[in-house]
Amino acid sequence: MRTRAAVAFEAGKPLVVTEVELEGPKAGEVLVEIKATGLCHTDEFTRSGADPEGMFPAILGHEGAGVVVEVGAGVKSVKPGDHVIPLYTPECRECEYCLNPKTNLCQAIRATQGQGLMPDGTSRFRTLDGDPILHYMGCSTFSNFTVLPEIAVAKIREDAPFDKVCYIGCGVTTGVGAVINTAKAEPGCRAVVFGLGGIGLNVLQGLRLIGADQIVGVDLNPAKREMAERFGMTDFVNPAEVEGDLVPYLVNLTKGGADYTFDCTGNVNVMRTALECCHKGWGESIIIGVAPAGAEISTRPFQLVTGRSWRGTAFGGARGRTDVPKIVDWYMDGKIEIDPMITHQLTLDEINHGFDLMHEGKSIRSVVVY
Amino acid sequence: MRTRAAVAFEAGKPLVVTEVELEGPKAGEVLVEIKATGLCHTDEFTRSGADPEGMFPAILGHEGAGVVVEVGAGVKSVKPGDHVIPLYTPECRECEYCLNPKTNLCQAIRATQGQGLMPDGTSRFRTLDGDPILHYMGCSTFSNFTVLPEIAVAKIREDAPFDKVCYIGCGVTTGVGAVINTAKAEPGCRAVVFGLGGIGLNVLQGLRLIGADQIVGVDLNPAKREMAERFGMTDFVNPAEVEGDLVPYLVNLTKGGADYTFDCTGNVNVMRTALECCHKGWGESIIIGVAPAGAEISTRPFQLVTGRSWRGTAFGGARGRTDVPKIVDWYMDGKIEIDPMITHQLTLDEINHGFDLMHEGKSIRSVVVY
Ligand SMILES: [Zn+2]
Ligand SMILES: [Zn+2]
Ligand SMILES: [Zn+2]
Ligand SMILES: [Zn+2]
Repeated sequence: MRTRAAVAFEAGKPLVVTEVELEGPKAGEVLVEIKATGLCHTDEFTRSGADPEGMFPAILGHEGAGVVVEVGAGVKSVKPGDHVIPLYTPECRECEYCLNPKTNLCQAIRATQGQGLMPDGTSRFRTLDGDPILHYMGCSTFSNFTVLPEIAVAKIREDAPFDKVCYIGCGVTTGVGAVINTAKAEPGCRAVVFGLGGIGLNVLQGLRLIGADQIVGVDLNPAKREMAERFGMTDFVNPAEVEGDLVPYLVNLTKGGADYTFDCTGNVNVMRTALECCHKGWGESIIIGVAPAGAEISTRPFQLVTGRSWRGTAFGGARGRTDVPKIVDWYMDGKIEIDPMITHQLTLDEINHGFDLMHEGKSIRSVVVY
Repeated sequence: MRTRAAVAFEAGKPLVVTEVELEGPKAGEVLVEIKATGLCHTDEFTRSGADPEGMFPAILGHEGAGVVVEVGAGVKSVKPGDHVIPLYTPECRECEYCLNPKTNLCQAIRATQGQGLMPDGTSRFRTLDGDPILHYMGCSTFSNFTVLPEIAVAKIREDAPFDKVCYIGCGVTTGVGAVINTAKAEPGCRAVVFGLGGIGLNVLQGLRLIGADQIVGVDLNPAKREMAERFGMTDFVNPAEVEGDLVPYLVNLTKGGADYTFDCTGNVNVMRTALECCHKGWGESIIIGVAPAGAEISTRPFQLVTGRSWRGTAFGGARGRTDVPKIVDWYMDGKIEIDPMITHQLTLDEINHGFDLMHEGKSIRSVVVY
């Protein structure tokens, strides 16, 4: 079949919206009509050429929601008409990782996914001239129709609006999940969140959801304050306005240090601050942000020996097929908010404008609605 | 009263064995006759002058066992005749730290202990000329008699031999506790232990105790192998004999990476290796060794984002008054071994020879028996 898609032909170039050929689902795969997709920093990291592992040509996008159109042989967990969210972290429920409750990093299709291919080692996308186009993060939601492995779709309720819950495919789950699955933060805790962009806002609302007592937000941009307060922030700190070192300031503000801190900046210096403002004895710092290639984090080992832990999270520690439908329910039940974070709605033809908005800091999330 | 003690008058100088004046216990304190004390690297770190926070003159020693001789006003948990192990990490059972199950770092007397003083801000030790001598780590077990806060003594069974269980006051608990309290390692796990000195041996036997499936020991000294095997090591790795990078070698040896790794070297480069050979998704690396002042650990944040955790431990995460008596029981029941690690027994007059043996690598533990 043919489908419209935004194709990244070359690193650093704008996406090209065009028709492409899409082969139908093979065994264990599903064809999904994408109804909406968010534009994530990770897409831009690849599109811009900053990702040393980026491969082209590819159809980017990994934060979508849509409807199953057709299923390949052997597919049992979804059927045509089911509403789904594509999962860049799949959940096979059979591999060594899925069977270990300590991790969500299913490895069932990791090798081929990393090469931009379906599990059988081939791509379903081609140009109209017949040249192969790579998949991206196993999702390629910048195509109106896409093919996904069955283990990489989460079935969700049918009354959930695609243009909002698509954000659960990445940012919402990453932020809320970091609090719930990775930190397992408890009611009454004190937390500090570094970076109040989309991920940071979702960490804030995750902390509000679990009943944190103090939710400190740290950002150099004072304009972030209002929205952050809407998502549960109790204290705002602008490092530019703090005299002296930020660590003792935050330790004092949190009455001895934070129980949990979250880095949503990708800046390795901020990651160090996030660790060191943790409470002695039990504070845990969780890295969410993606650092530039080659960047390293450092600290004195004394920080760890005196009881702080340094950890990280991917996709919020969520097992997609199990946890994503729950987060959709939380949204529908009003336990978490998404609507105010979807600041821009675009057509597929306007997708490059969405990346401009991201760079200009004007959007929290731009969503393409097909 | 007067007591014999080995006094560190100056950094870098040998200890001086001499008589000193010891004031009796004040309220909440106990007078203990030390029967035996181990010589730990931490004592030598201070004696040698390497510790930038070292203070002199002081009576070092923090790994002892003895008998309560007299108790001050209000002391309820021990009485004269009780056998005890001094605790450099006390357990008040009342402070914010003691009441938080995530930590063992009781802060009740931290400030004064750090200054070499009893909780009332004074010292019980003086020279015969009347000049004050500082306490050390709240213990000062290099004195035949010493005064300790009640919250800094663990009451133990009376049939336990002092010259062996004194080692539970530091090294044994640090190593075994790191496995049990900090890592909470499970039966069937795979672990790597870096550095097969006294602490490393105790980590090995902690892993054996909890039923680890694979216990890899890493040390540059092949002479460490035999003793390490006696304490449960299943695989020995000499980095000098590994071609190429140690990390992939250890990942391969542990079938994908270790569930738990322990640094007992204090070398920040080893600490990095210990983190990076952890299993993706769930491996935890625990720092036990004390790094040189100013040294920093580093890694790429990707290591944490893909599921490894970097943590540390002090006194094996043990709550001394609660956990030390249990470890004494384990020794008496044959669940852990101590005897082969006590390689040298000395008199107090021979104490400086014990530090020579430490430097020459000839001892695992030298114990002074009074
Ligand atoms: Zn994303
Ligand atoms: Zn799996
Ligand atoms: Zn020690
Ligand atoms: Zn306490």
